[in-house]
Amino acid sequence: MIRPLIAAVALSGLGILSLACNETSASSAGVRTAQGMAQQPTTPSYKVSFGQDGKLARPRGYRRWIYIGAPLTPNDMNNGKAAFPEFHSVYIDPVSYDHYKQHGVWRDGTVVVKELVSVGTKSSSSGAGYFMGEFLGVEVALKDEKRFPDEPGHWGYFRFTDEKGGPPHQRAEQMPTAACATCHAATAAEDLVFTQHYPVLRAAKNVGNVEPEDR
Amino acid sequence: MIRPLIAAVALSGLGILSLACNETSASSAGVRTAQGMAQQPTTPSYKVSFGQDGKLARPRGYRRWIYIGAPLTPNDMNNGKAAFPEFHSVYIDPVSYDHYKQHGVWRDGTVVVKELVSVGTKSSSSGAGYFMGEFLGVEVALKDEKRFPDEPGHWGYFRFTDEKGGPPHQRAEQMPTAACATCHAATAAEDLVFTQHYPVLRAAKNVGNVEPEDR
Repeated sequence: MIRPLIAAVALSGLGILSLACNETSASSAGVRTAQGMAQQPTTPSYKVSFGQDGKLARPRGYRRWIYIGAPLTPNDMNNGKAAFPEFHSVYIDPVSYDHYKQHGVWRDGTVVVKELVSVGTKSSSSGAGYFMGEFLGVEVALKDEKRFPDEPGHWGYFRFTDEKGGPPHQRAEQMPTAACATCHAATAAEDLVFTQHYPVLRAAKNVGNVEPEDR
Repeated sequence: MIRPLIAAVALSGLGILSLACNETSASSAGVRTAQGMAQQPTTPSYKVSFGQDGKLARPRGYRRWIYIGAPLTPNDMNNGKAAFPEFHSVYIDPVSYDHYKQHGVWRDGTVVVKELVSVGTKSSSSGAGYFMGEFLGVEVALKDEKRFPDEPGHWGYFRFTDEKGGPPHQRAEQMPTAACATCHAATAAEDLVFTQHYPVLRAAKNVGNVEPEDR
């Protein structure tokens, strides 16, 4: 507990307070016993950070989280104006992924990061298709019962994407319920998460599609 | 050094020998100092395993590696028979990714995993597009100078995909040079890796596209 306190004190000068919303869960992330070769160290829970202005700090380190899939809604299939252009690379923090794998539910504190990437080209030596171009933005969903008591599933949504095409914002305020949560609640397969589009998640629960890692 | 030796002895009963091709590199994977919140534990090098028959064992644990992108070559854009149907989720082992980020080259021992996933649907509440269905297969590239002295860039390619649609094979033999390496050598941007399609890699080298994590 000493190091988080030091971090909180150090960061308070920047107007950032560490929110330890995940501390009750036991972390067993990354430990695989079936193959000794693949054994990984234990991963600490990810701690989101809110500023004193109530804005969420853009999560860091998600390049090392669990990638769950990459839906694609290209502009050229959506009259030039896709709601989420164009590739969506989606990550979930490792401790919440492991909890989901074990219990089949999204724990309080789950963080989902959606990185938006443009279509760079539609042809390569592997064939015709869609190939990634440049980063366009970052969006986040956070499940937090205390912070979002009245939101569907207690999920809060945040958009760090710069609408003018610049680098993503460092902080973002919560999106209105109607902007994100309403649609997620109505159309996502499971607790506002689009499990139907993520074979990694279906395999984690062994629903129809067993992960190659496990067979 | 004791644990790898025990693992090698234990695995020898299964006809598997641990190949410690990565042992000379110092691992500093995952340590981030800029944001104390995102600090990660050090990741050990991934050790590939070859059977006594010379076949490579399908890598495990890659769900926790670094995802670098997901090119898509759908069957419906390739006369129903894409060379690589359909989504390609690509991962690189973390220690080699960190080495690339620091030195800009692929070190000996780099492992690239390409997980093939079908197109499940072409419409969702987010718009028209391509959404992932089920796992189709697993392919691997391994850079190993001693094992592949005569291959372009010393990369060996392996296909674990079951051509009949079953689960991926547990082991695979090296593909002929003309089946994979020749095309990679001719069309990939950098040392047989298609850096041009992976913004994560370009950002790792700070070529044109700075990673959201770093700004």
